[in-house]
Amino acid sequence: MNEPVNLAQKLALFEERFSPRIVATMNDYKIEVVKVEGEFVWHSHQTDDFFLVLEGELEIELRDRTVQLRKGDLFVVPCGVEHRPRATEEAHILLIEPQGTPNTGDAADSKLTAAERTI
Amino acid sequence: MNEPVNLAQKLALFEERFSPRIVATMNDYKIEVVKVEGEFVWHSHQTDDFFLVLEGELEIELRDRTVQLRKGDLFVVPCGVEHRPRATEEAHILLIEPQGTPNTGDAADSKLTAAERTI
Repeated sequence: MNEPVNLAQKLALFEERFSPRIVATMNDYKIEVVKVEGEFVWHSHQTDDFFLVLEGELEIELRDRTVQLRKGDLFVVPCGVEHRPRATEEAHILLIEPQGTPNTGDAADSKLTAAERTI
Repeated sequence: MNEPVNLAQKLALFEERFSPRIVATMNDYKIEVVKVEGEFVWHSHQTDDFFLVLEGELEIELRDRTVQLRKGDLFVVPCGVEHRPRATEEAHILLIEPQGTPNTGDAADSKLTAAERTI
């Protein structure tokens, strides 16, 4: 049976950047927390991509603009839209995507590609 | 094209309790904010049901236990499991469910059943 998950407690368990950890599932979706700092890779997914900023600030570069997100902001990158997340300082993000979605999307040969890990 | 959504700003736009407002969509899912205070109805859904506490405290009664959630806690009620959310004081919740899922699930004749509304 499912248990409550405290997001800050889960985030306190690891330090790696750009390495999402699955904290729960909902139907065939994974719910992840991730610490970001620095610049990710340009990529896109064959799914919408949910971001909610839990701590800090996140920029999501799109090809035609950059979206600025602060704590309490959510943004859904539409399916197929190229994007590059980046954060000047450490930020904590809640991610939701279908299970099996690679974190680097179509840039799956990136050194930033991370295996799905549950915490 | 999608825009960033600040959850607190959306929550400041309405006062009704147990009346979720859609703030974004992700694939065929709706992302909602809701203000809760008092006791909801017992119900279940034909889907997993995602709760994240943004402000305040939420209890989710299940038939065999009660789950206590505070700010920053998430809980996924499994598909088909009867539950009754309640809050002694006003609490703000992020909900995620497939579009078309009624807020009162199988108790759709409840006076608490709310139409899907976007804000």
